[in-house]
Amino acid sequence: MNQFALLHITDSAYCFPTSEHEIVIRLRTARDDIQKAWIVFESKYVIGESQKKELMRKELSGELYDYYSITLTLQDTRLAYIFYLYDGKDYYYFSEDGATSTYDFTKGYYNFFQYPYINTADILKKEEWLSQACFYQIFIDRFLMEDNDKDKSYINLKWGDIPNPKSFAGGDIKGIISKLDYIKQLGCDALYLTPIFKSPSNHKYDIVDYFEIDRQFGTKEDLKSLVEELHKKGMRIVLDAVFNHVSELNDKFQDCIEKGKDSEYFDWFVIKGDRPEKKPLNYEVFAGCKYMPKWNTSNPDVQKYLISIATYYIKEFDIDGWRLDVSDEISHDFWRRFRKEVKAVKEDAVIIGENWHDASNYLRGDQYDSIMNYAFTKAALDYFAYDKFDAQSMSNKLNDILARNSDTVNDMMLNLLDSHDTDRFFSEVHENKDSFKAALALLYLFPGSPSIFYGTECYTVGGYDPDCRRCMDWDKTPDNELSELIKKLSNVRKNSRLSFSGTNIYASSDNKLLCMKRHGQDADIALYINQSDSSGQDNEIMVEAGKFKLFVNGGVVL
Amino acid sequence: MNQFALLHITDSAYCFPTSEHEIVIRLRTARDDIQKAWIVFESKYVIGESQKKELMRKELSGELYDYYSITLTLQDTRLAYIFYLYDGKDYYYFSEDGATSTYDFTKGYYNFFQYPYINTADILKKEEWLSQACFYQIFIDRFLMEDNDKDKSYINLKWGDIPNPKSFAGGDIKGIISKLDYIKQLGCDALYLTPIFKSPSNHKYDIVDYFEIDRQFGTKEDLKSLVEELHKKGMRIVLDAVFNHVSELNDKFQDCIEKGKDSEYFDWFVIKGDRPEKKPLNYEVFAGCKYMPKWNTSNPDVQKYLISIATYYIKEFDIDGWRLDVSDEISHDFWRRFRKEVKAVKEDAVIIGENWHDASNYLRGDQYDSIMNYAFTKAALDYFAYDKFDAQSMSNKLNDILARNSDTVNDMMLNLLDSHDTDRFFSEVHENKDSFKAALALLYLFPGSPSIFYGTECYTVGGYDPDCRRCMDWDKTPDNELSELIKKLSNVRKNSRLSFSGTNIYASSDNKLLCMKRHGQDADIALYINQSDSSGQDNEIMVEAGKFKLFVNGGVVL
Repeated sequence: MNQFALLHITDSAYCFPTSEHEIVIRLRTARDDIQKAWIVFESKYVIGESQKKELMRKELSGELYDYYSITLTLQDTRLAYIFYLYDGKDYYYFSEDGATSTYDFTKGYYNFFQYPYINTADILKKEEWLSQACFYQIFIDRFLMEDNDKDKSYINLKWGDIPNPKSFAGGDIKGIISKLDYIKQLGCDALYLTPIFKSPSNHKYDIVDYFEIDRQFGTKEDLKSLVEELHKKGMRIVLDAVFNHVSELNDKFQDCIEKGKDSEYFDWFVIKGDRPEKKPLNYEVFAGCKYMPKWNTSNPDVQKYLISIATYYIKEFDIDGWRLDVSDEISHDFWRRFRKEVKAVKEDAVIIGENWHDASNYLRGDQYDSIMNYAFTKAALDYFAYDKFDAQSMSNKLNDILARNSDTVNDMMLNLLDSHDTDRFFSEVHENKDSFKAALALLYLFPGSPSIFYGTECYTVGGYDPDCRRCMDWDKTPDNELSELIKKLSNVRKNSRLSFSGTNIYASSDNKLLCMKRHGQDADIALYINQSDSSGQDNEIMVEAGKFKLFVNGGVVL
Repeated sequence: MNQFALLHITDSAYCFPTSEHEIVIRLRTARDDIQKAWIVFESKYVIGESQKKELMRKELSGELYDYYSITLTLQDTRLAYIFYLYDGKDYYYFSEDGATSTYDFTKGYYNFFQYPYINTADILKKEEWLSQACFYQIFIDRFLMEDNDKDKSYINLKWGDIPNPKSFAGGDIKGIISKLDYIKQLGCDALYLTPIFKSPSNHKYDIVDYFEIDRQFGTKEDLKSLVEELHKKGMRIVLDAVFNHVSELNDKFQDCIEKGKDSEYFDWFVIKGDRPEKKPLNYEVFAGCKYMPKWNTSNPDVQKYLISIATYYIKEFDIDGWRLDVSDEISHDFWRRFRKEVKAVKEDAVIIGENWHDASNYLRGDQYDSIMNYAFTKAALDYFAYDKFDAQSMSNKLNDILARNSDTVNDMMLNLLDSHDTDRFFSEVHENKDSFKAALALLYLFPGSPSIFYGTECYTVGGYDPDCRRCMDWDKTPDNELSELIKKLSNVRKNSRLSFSGTNIYASSDNKLLCMKRHGQDADIALYINQSDSSGQDNEIMVEAGKFKLFVNGGVVL
């Protein structure tokens, strides 16, 4: 047995409660290294006396490792456990002391693994609506203009022309309202809007006043109408919380510029000196941008102020959650308080971090529900666009990604192929429609929820920011074969009610097909994707080069 | 290179800030597997352009793994990094994507490791006094009786007789006060007292009223005097917080018995039914003990109540911290709030959990400062008492234990050979004085702070509870050769001001000696322990079988 590969971490994605009496335990081993893994367990106060033994199942297989899993339903939740492993030749115990050929249960209280007690306050609850949602992300300035009352003098881009960083095309909230039926028909039942608050830029990630809607986008009445309208249609909305930084034009930062250390807001920022200076830069900013000073989110007053914004838009406008911009540069301390206060005003409001990397320390139940799954994005690029992955590598990578997080988090991940911060995926695949469709099928059916960037449904192209933020081409909508595919995929999702448990992702033995089988409350699905250059086969299923096939309950639907 | 062994986890003991501009990075590899490890790093917004490269040093070597480490001092703390490894033949990059022979820096934002920003609110601060303290743990009923005003009718054990679970010997707070000079002379400058609050038992872990001192032990005036006296002597005191459970005689639980679901305290416990019943037991208890109902620490009212106790004794009596009983069965949510409120009333009050197992999720800066280091206890037993470990296995185990936690936590760990919850260590080593002394030398000089159980200094024996709680034998104190050794060890500690960084624990090449070299702010020390049955040697240092040698700045002192 490869002892080096063994990994188990208590109170992590390897050991997490899903309810007061249910806990999931995972174990990592080297891939194809052991034949059987059991968990040996009991209440921590009696493990020396009456331990139970249950076989674990191999759940995930990544590049180097297999991940075994078991869900235990317990009366006494003071769980003590070790693993018992068989490699075809020898048996091993695996405890906090590592792999050993014998195990002294009478001293087990020193080195068994444990989940000492399931406290309800520590359980990350699955938000059912989030896990079943299909998101539509809108970069508002480029979506649609319908507000005829506003001052349009700021608009400097002719609809359809290629944008530059300073372009304003005129899109607004009224434009979104007018397209809610369109979005819903596409199968999307949740909106994620980039920022809407008062800001000088087109993207509005440099906010001047969080308590005002930018007049370019509309009014508070418009936001109210939007939320009311979409709720009527059974849809939800998530807004963008830019709490890492602010515009230099914000009154609190301006007060620091004016009064220096005498400003009551001086400690709201991180300023090394008597007042903020640009040359040399003496205050913390976002990404080197001097016009976006960073909030000092370790300061309780700043926490209170920013969180009051988050709760205001929930209480006053009934929004359904927040996407957290640059959330990984903000303190855990801030997000813990944020979660408590946000969930107190709306229990099923969701919290989705923008963490491009492993975010497990934010996803323990005390901070976010979910993150934007850029690890999935990268895997999709490597497989569909960059020709870096064959079916086997892609299967390995997707398994490894799923092993990062708990089942609960996997079911709530916001999966995406692209966003306002990446190249358009259709451009990345060199406008290969088959690859794009197959990627969408994977996006829609992978554990978690899909988020498509506006225009995905009409093959919008574009490079990196600002090119990925082109104007929506309404002439190409609503009816084309891609929209139909997206509708169908979202229907399959909705009608099967998938959950992470039971997901099986693997490569066919000829290494041509990426295969994903999933179990749903209402139906089982199987997806076969062929990105190789010749036809491939998994058992009786044959898929042509470049194509995919989707089965529901054994019957082909796509 | 053994890829299976590679491990790095961001925002963990493998990557933690120690100040606003300093961060420690660790990497795990297979033992003796690679020749060199570098970190390649830069601000996350420019890593593709101008990364720096620095050699890491091998810091710890456990049974299977080596741990490399480096401390980075950064101006821009938005750290992005990968590792670069050389195994003598090939070079590898190690990122979130695993080990690869090439690395695409231009796409690094998808898969580098990162510590996105050092927020001061997330830094676990080293409490200097805790890291330099020597603790003396007292089980009060068995220490000394000096209160002549109290009703002594409860006393049922003649001082010096062997206790049973129901024995009361009469020890009290006045007894402790009268021995403060004795304790201080022994080199101990911090007390940890088992519970002092109103309770029917001798151990008082079943508390009836947290706001009363048990009259057997004394009065609030006695506690005030104790704290005042010891503070005058430059000493500190940590009390025992029993917040997992309570006595069934507690008025709030009694109210539930009386009023059932109509009690305002019904949700303060976890009761499945209309009122608490013992047959069959329908409420949560501690360790199967029906007389100790478990608090529902997920309930915010319970949190508020229990934390008000913690802050009351700090505000009113100026105690210096809390040891947390059965802390692993209480919610993280509770301990987060506890920490905030306790540190708000006394910034350097310390929080020490009773977690016998890996507690890294409690030691991230949001919950405890430290835990009772029972992993160290078990290693000491396996080496000094059970003959399970030779020098090499012991060195491996101690290295592996240190690898569990950050440098900051290692410096604050409360190390112990025994306590009220274990057999006496002197009995475990079959009363072998040489082994006992060597174990004490290791205890005193291992990273963290030593805690000795009352009577250690006079070779007190005893089996498991209640036998480990025998009466202090004052006839054997204060002057014996063991007290002298303890004084000397504590002087060496105090005079060298050791910190974890620079610790090197290894076995001599003849595998006879356990060697520990440590670096201190004021002196360097080297400890050589021989637990084999013949003399052993490390370079020029020779140690006889069963003995130990201690050097300070190269000169032998013991």
